[in-house]
Amino acid sequence: MKLKDIGEFGLIESFSKKYFSEKLPDGVSGIGDDCAVIPSKGGDFLVSTDLLTENVHFIKDEIGGELLGKKSLAVNLSDLAASGATPVASFLSIAIPPETDTEFLDAFFKGYAFWSKKFNCPLLGGDTTKSLSGLTINVTVIGRAVNKKFRSGAKPGDVVCVTGFLGDSAAGLEFVTNPEKPRNKTSEYFISRHHNPEPRIFEGQFLAEFQGVHAMMDISDGISSDLKHIMKASRVSAVVELEKLPLSPLMTECYSLRDAYSFATSGGEDYELLLTVDSKKFAEISEKFEQKFSKPLYAIGKITESYSPDIVFLENSFPLNGFSNGFDHFTA
Amino acid sequence: MKLKDIGEFGLIESFSKKYFSEKLPDGVSGIGDDCAVIPSKGGDFLVSTDLLTENVHFIKDEIGGELLGKKSLAVNLSDLAASGATPVASFLSIAIPPETDTEFLDAFFKGYAFWSKKFNCPLLGGDTTKSLSGLTINVTVIGRAVNKKFRSGAKPGDVVCVTGFLGDSAAGLEFVTNPEKPRNKTSEYFISRHHNPEPRIFEGQFLAEFQGVHAMMDISDGISSDLKHIMKASRVSAVVELEKLPLSPLMTECYSLRDAYSFATSGGEDYELLLTVDSKKFAEISEKFEQKFSKPLYAIGKITESYSPDIVFLENSFPLNGFSNGFDHFTA
Repeated sequence: MKLKDIGEFGLIESFSKKYFSEKLPDGVSGIGDDCAVIPSKGGDFLVSTDLLTENVHFIKDEIGGELLGKKSLAVNLSDLAASGATPVASFLSIAIPPETDTEFLDAFFKGYAFWSKKFNCPLLGGDTTKSLSGLTINVTVIGRAVNKKFRSGAKPGDVVCVTGFLGDSAAGLEFVTNPEKPRNKTSEYFISRHHNPEPRIFEGQFLAEFQGVHAMMDISDGISSDLKHIMKASRVSAVVELEKLPLSPLMTECYSLRDAYSFATSGGEDYELLLTVDSKKFAEISEKFEQKFSKPLYAIGKITESYSPDIVFLENSFPLNGFSNGFDHFTA
Repeated sequence: MKLKDIGEFGLIESFSKKYFSEKLPDGVSGIGDDCAVIPSKGGDFLVSTDLLTENVHFIKDEIGGELLGKKSLAVNLSDLAASGATPVASFLSIAIPPETDTEFLDAFFKGYAFWSKKFNCPLLGGDTTKSLSGLTINVTVIGRAVNKKFRSGAKPGDVVCVTGFLGDSAAGLEFVTNPEKPRNKTSEYFISRHHNPEPRIFEGQFLAEFQGVHAMMDISDGISSDLKHIMKASRVSAVVELEKLPLSPLMTECYSLRDAYSFATSGGEDYELLLTVDSKKFAEISEKFEQKFSKPLYAIGKITESYSPDIVFLENSFPLNGFSNGFDHFTA
């Protein structure tokens, strides 16, 4: 059997169950959430790692060195944001074709240093090696949190929320992967949203302080895939109202509602936070969030009783079928 | 300018100086040692990461899934051993061509789990993604240590020691990269030493307890390269006596002394520990080491005054010129 037949999501779960079934020490948790947890006095350590490969996660000449460096760290910091952690350090491994221009690498490190400085997250180590094929980048981030949030913890009645516009990154990806599409200021906006995501570190830290925030994660694959992780980990179901999905002004201007909903639910790489909030606390938390960040905390649906693997999407209060189920790198 | 013109070692150092020059928080240390240090009550956390790429670090069909999994974790644990740390957790990222057999991956995870169990080092997370070219593996390990050792700390007069035979792995690599060479029981020994290194975790922990152990690292590139890291970090020089290099019985049987010395000094991937010991404490420490591990702590040379970038190799007490300077993935 080939990997493409079982897919990426099957892989980690099946092998970790088969070969790593020992009970973990108290307080330690691992595979299955945005971050692993290593307990320590004064705040648990949270760890996350992401691997980016050329022509799968990025097209080198489309994104350029600086934005690639920025995004490589940003997508990892986003996992720390999802847990409400404060960044402590990052580690960068790169496999580089020997023909790579040092100017490209210089720009890469400049971009990487941008978020490193912004969030006081020093680069403490890594590995550099030759690649006989494409550029491969692995970043590991370590953060620390006293009040941390997980995918589990969502409760029936919770309000499902997101911290910003959804779908712009997916619209940008369409331009990146279809070079024949005309480029203009509009396309540049979407492409920039795809290449230059901002990790919601401050939002994550702020939200993690509230007991009324029950579950949190970041949106990397689109809510139609990511919300299912919360549902599975929390053993609950969820309803999402399409009209409530926050869409950017350019998204509503340039795309039909149907396309916009598709980008917003199944597109991925928005790197906003997805959280569920106690309905009794939602008014207070969203008001404080808006005061602090000058943007709304968008309520897009609610958590319902008992586990189901499928999200119910409502359009004008009617359930809608046939929405995509997120994507899997291997079987897609 | 291309990367191949400046080489791997120049890369991290020059960009980290240029873009990551902020002072680190107290007790935090990063680039330039086997492990980074993140202070914490109850024992500092040590972190290391290694990237392995297909046809650069391994030939997939030569090593096979199980030994590749074993080695991927072993070379990282070796960095923890070098600091005297106790393993806490590992994180595994793999970029996999979709055509890869799941049997190969199953064997990989089985091998990875071997050292994971042996050293109580659970796999707590990672990332799996598609690769459009070869297999790429990145492992990050986290350990903890109260008494930790670094590359700096070597003092003039120290005895330079290693924990086991040198050069076998390099001899094995010659068979791996020259498939036309005949295979027999002898070649299998050397190939096994190359594909199946044992991280010296227990030895590292034991040695780190002694104040008389001044500096320690693991031997990944060969002592002609690795000992220079200790010399540079400690601002000292070193003399190595070739006759004292520990060679395996098969190495002395199958190779000329000159070839054996070359493998032992410049070959790399032995993953033994290289350390410098207070000469007044050497007798006591080496005796206790031999009692504990039933093998000698091999004295191979000594540390001398003031920094020089070159190791002095002695043969029959005479300085020898023309020895290789280790290797660099990009310029080699």
